[in-house]
Amino acid sequence: MKPTVVLVPQPQPVERIFRPETLARLHEAFEVVEPAEGELDAALGDAWAIVGQPELPTERLERAPHLRAVLNVEGNFYPNVDYPTCFTRSIRVLGCGPAYAQAVAEHALGLALDLARGISREDRAFRAGRERYLGEGNADAVLLRHADVGLVGYGNIGRALRPLLAAFGARVRAYDPWLPDAVLRDADVEPASLDEVLRRSTFVVVLATVTDDSQHLLGPRELDLLPEGARLVLVSRAAVTDYEALGERVAAGRFLAASDVWPTEPVPADSPFRSMEGLLLSAHRAGGIPAAFLEIGDMVVDDLELLARGLAPVRMQQAAPELVGRYRNRPAG
Amino acid sequence: MKPTVVLVPQPQPVERIFRPETLARLHEAFEVVEPAEGELDAALGDAWAIVGQPELPTERLERAPHLRAVLNVEGNFYPNVDYPTCFTRSIRVLGCGPAYAQAVAEHALGLALDLARGISREDRAFRAGRERYLGEGNADAVLLRHADVGLVGYGNIGRALRPLLAAFGARVRAYDPWLPDAVLRDADVEPASLDEVLRRSTFVVVLATVTDDSQHLLGPRELDLLPEGARLVLVSRAAVTDYEALGERVAAGRFLAASDVWPTEPVPADSPFRSMEGLLLSAHRAGGIPAAFLEIGDMVVDDLELLARGLAPVRMQQAAPELVGRYRNRPAG
Amino acid sequence: MKPTVVLVPQPQPVERIFRPETLARLHEAFEVVEPAEGELDAALGDAWAIVGQPELPTERLERAPHLRAVLNVEGNFYPNVDYPTCFTRSIRVLGCGPAYAQAVAEHALGLALDLARGISREDRAFRAGRERYLGEGNADAVLLRHADVGLVGYGNIGRALRPLLAAFGARVRAYDPWLPDAVLRDADVEPASLDEVLRRSTFVVVLATVTDDSQHLLGPRELDLLPEGARLVLVSRAAVTDYEALGERVAAGRFLAASDVWPTEPVPADSPFRSMEGLLLSAHRAGGIPAAFLEIGDMVVDDLELLARGLAPVRMQQAAPELVGRYRNRPAG
Amino acid sequence: MKPTVVLVPQPQPVERIFRPETLARLHEAFEVVEPAEGELDAALGDAWAIVGQPELPTERLERAPHLRAVLNVEGNFYPNVDYPTCFTRSIRVLGCGPAYAQAVAEHALGLALDLARGISREDRAFRAGRERYLGEGNADAVLLRHADVGLVGYGNIGRALRPLLAAFGARVRAYDPWLPDAVLRDADVEPASLDEVLRRSTFVVVLATVTDDSQHLLGPRELDLLPEGARLVLVSRAAVTDYEALGERVAAGRFLAASDVWPTEPVPADSPFRSMEGLLLSAHRAGGIPAAFLEIGDMVVDDLELLARGLAPVRMQQAAPELVGRYRNRPAG
Repeated sequence: MKPTVVLVPQPQPVERIFRPETLARLHEAFEVVEPAEGELDAALGDAWAIVGQPELPTERLERAPHLRAVLNVEGNFYPNVDYPTCFTRSIRVLGCGPAYAQAVAEHALGLALDLARGISREDRAFRAGRERYLGEGNADAVLLRHADVGLVGYGNIGRALRPLLAAFGARVRAYDPWLPDAVLRDADVEPASLDEVLRRSTFVVVLATVTDDSQHLLGPRELDLLPEGARLVLVSRAAVTDYEALGERVAAGRFLAASDVWPTEPVPADSPFRSMEGLLLSAHRAGGIPAAFLEIGDMVVDDLELLARGLAPVRMQQAAPELVGRYRNRPAG
Repeated sequence: MKPTVVLVPQPQPVERIFRPETLARLHEAFEVVEPAEGELDAALGDAWAIVGQPELPTERLERAPHLRAVLNVEGNFYPNVDYPTCFTRSIRVLGCGPAYAQAVAEHALGLALDLARGISREDRAFRAGRERYLGEGNADAVLLRHADVGLVGYGNIGRALRPLLAAFGARVRAYDPWLPDAVLRDADVEPASLDEVLRRSTFVVVLATVTDDSQHLLGPRELDLLPEGARLVLVSRAAVTDYEALGERVAAGRFLAASDVWPTEPVPADSPFRSMEGLLLSAHRAGGIPAAFLEIGDMVVDDLELLARGLAPVRMQQAAPELVGRYRNRPAG
Repeated sequence: MKPTVVLVPQPQPVERIFRPETLARLHEAFEVVEPAEGELDAALGDAWAIVGQPELPTERLERAPHLRAVLNVEGNFYPNVDYPTCFTRSIRVLGCGPAYAQAVAEHALGLALDLARGISREDRAFRAGRERYLGEGNADAVLLRHADVGLVGYGNIGRALRPLLAAFGARVRAYDPWLPDAVLRDADVEPASLDEVLRRSTFVVVLATVTDDSQHLLGPRELDLLPEGARLVLVSRAAVTDYEALGERVAAGRFLAASDVWPTEPVPADSPFRSMEGLLLSAHRAGGIPAAFLEIGDMVVDDLELLARGLAPVRMQQAAPELVGRYRNRPAG
Repeated sequence: MKPTVVLVPQPQPVERIFRPETLARLHEAFEVVEPAEGELDAALGDAWAIVGQPELPTERLERAPHLRAVLNVEGNFYPNVDYPTCFTRSIRVLGCGPAYAQAVAEHALGLALDLARGISREDRAFRAGRERYLGEGNADAVLLRHADVGLVGYGNIGRALRPLLAAFGARVRAYDPWLPDAVLRDADVEPASLDEVLRRSTFVVVLATVTDDSQHLLGPRELDLLPEGARLVLVSRAAVTDYEALGERVAAGRFLAASDVWPTEPVPADSPFRSMEGLLLSAHRAGGIPAAFLEIGDMVVDDLELLARGLAPVRMQQAAPELVGRYRNRPAG
């Protein structure tokens, strides 16, 4: 008898995260149940695994005596699960965060190279008939080669970004208060304080997750530490940065910035951000690309197959008992 | 007595290519002569080296009996030098092409990542109040990770671009009829025909130099080989590509393209290229950035110092007797 | 009040795994208790963490109501712990396997290069006055550059070995029945069957852990798949390979081999392995070097500090509930 | 009519450097003449290229009015050619040194890893029944990971060795008085004085070519700068090092060394080097392996084909007019 997998990936549509052949693999190896809205409880009695991020309070987990794994396909762990019960019952709680890492890292590098060379700014100028040829438009252009690059936060995305930066021979410093220095040094990254990262970097990429401690980690004081003409790339949650202070400095030409995240999304129609020359605007697009979504489905089926063979999952990320209570991320949709 | 260096870098201003400390090194080791316009001939009698790209026909070279080296600081070898006489007299003819390679490679990668993710397109949409959040604007977004990348031409820029692509685990094919396959294989690049490069690549970067053979190397037939939705980056001389055919296909949405070079520069004010959504416009800005210009001065002084010590130059590129007659590049300014 | 850490690292001497400064950090942050032999039970009442690999049956765990973590400092998980109880109680069970990975990977590469070039064989000949100069002794020498390399097993050591092989542009295939193909492809490794790995590789490195399934994974049939003149490096547990079949083939000159592990250790004094020309002999020395031992102490203290701050451990490896029952490794000392 | 290539590769046998298919390519594209001993002069009248390193004094070059290229297939440029006449006549003088670089680099790394881990020493002990298991034999074992590595000389071999060292995250310093600092920095190598290289490196690899200036570059004073327990790898010409001073220090246990080159070859039968425990002995075997020899033939035919098409050679190394008079290497056979 095949183990039963309850498939409730919403808001992810099934076809966004599963290629047809991946879905076929899932159905081949498992009894797949897709309960209609409101019928999840009824489906839990046989559930061996849940794919999705439904509410799983204590009483619901009690309805699922055979449950071995909960596989989140959205990206963040939310406080809607009774994690302690999962851990006590040795139910694997897995997340798909790594699926987005490469996409975000490539987007971040693209934003950084854009700021380095004025790619989108000069494209706009060209369309307006104001393009400047050859060296004329390059007064502030800089190389990434051998540059000082600072990372604020070093998790999945930082690990995906590191080898890309290595190809430029960049000197990389990182600030991550959750990591021992040795983890950074193993990755040929120099551990540094936040102030040092900001003060010594031509390029800064902000990748930090939001916790109580990291709200407005980058305030006016911190932003003022950036060197004149620095390039700041924001791809983590917006709450890490004081956007008002950011806007003032970018508008004043203190440094250039690119942002993929915003304090309120959608950004108000009349936001001054929309017309800042020194700001590259990106609409929370860094991670959610087709290849990343489809990677989620591949990870889910790979790990379900391993679990069914009595092996440990290797592709998704385990929820850490110590951390699940700390995240403050809002669902992104 | 110090050897005499005649400094005629025009159109490069001296301060664009020499940092103050590099210029100081030059003056420390050499007698530097900067002839006013029309007075070059008079300066040649003592010249041990010429830094610049003046006309050097047979009779002028005869005026310079002590000449040991000509160091071009503009980027291309032009047909204004009697090269055979230089070679017969063992006068080193050196070019600064490599100084631009890293800058061009980084710009090319920046353009490729922009096309991969729609960075400038979505920035424009954002400014117009039409931004699309999360997956909405990502329908055509692709990763560079593990992508098929084709290079048309593999010289200095290709060599600088190769390690950047390696960081993405990209599969790189190249077409270069001037190179034995072994050179490409040594660089972990697969040698391929032009057709194969175009047909099998998601990303194509055109880096070819112009020769008689490469005029419109990319015509309608070749452009039609590109896969639907490919990303084409043009950073070499414009004559390699048929821009009319290019424009038709980009306008029709067959593929996306970025161009740093243009058939006529400046591009006419009413050119349809200026409003194409699928085209990223760059005004011949890939190479001429401050860091590249200053690299030229460093290379010049490094190699002059080596020559003065009786050693071989190692930083600039030697003119190849077999090739100097083949180039058709126009001065870029 | 500091959390209590019970330190029972035997057979590891404390000073082998802790640098003085690391030990100082441990004492700074924790109440460290080192029970004499037979007094462990008495120490468990206050224990917040145990550093070592003592017997921890159910009843002993019951004596440790505050226990949050067990940190193994020997290298393998043994069946002397009641793992289910640990998991149910959310006690972290951590292993130090990753501490040895770099040492083993470097040793494996050293053995492979020795076999590639006959380094130790020709050193012996030199000492015996039989050295052969220049090409004479190189008839069977091969490059690692662009070679086909096969890995049997892809865990911590494989991951440490992968970048070393990448520097040679080697084409790497791996067989690992515990891993989905995607994990290998992410590492730019080609997933392959065991037969394919053996048949197509010039170099084969055996890294597999012993389970019921992997006993004599490499028997006569498998060893006969190796190409004539292949180089086989054995650094995992000896039980994976049929050493009698191995010895016959090496003695017959079918291929060259290096072994760091042996069916019985010490190897019998009269073992024919001791005089085989085609066999490089290493006395289980791949992992246990000073730098690896000291890394264990660093990992232990780093992770203890994280746990004490309420964060997840990141340096040691978590025991997988699915796997702890499968390992059959014998303690190595 | 095909251009005439005079093939006189002695002492290299034709079949050592040409694969059958490479030789077929040569015959396909060229009229190949292989003059018997003493009949070279007669063959020169039609010669378009010479493959080999025969005596080419002025008068012999005069017999070869159509000569366009001389391709050395032995490895070093000797003083048996009238180089100035070649340069004046724009005759390409090409060397095959790069063919050996990868082989030497891999051998050097193999020697370094052997010294790091005592691979050959412990293999000898094992054969003598004195092997030490696990940590016992590892007291002096060190990692290459993150080690300080010094290179004395940075030419073809250094460039081949650099990426191998990068995979270990090694910090690489180099001393090369013929190179501007920028060349080293471009390769992510720190330029340093000889003293600093010796003083700060755990591993030192000597790659310097012999010139008048480099005779006994490493004398007693310099060797005494090495840290206690350093690992010294000698793969360049022996004249660079004072072997008497070297032997004293290795015998005294000051550091470990490996040598592939020797002041006199063959090494005298009664040389004390033959029994030194701390010395790894290699009989000038680093470069001359089958793959390197065959690479020479490939390079020769690739470059001849390019020259015949009117293109510049790209695989072999051009003789530098400034350097040909400086080399003092003795033919190695």
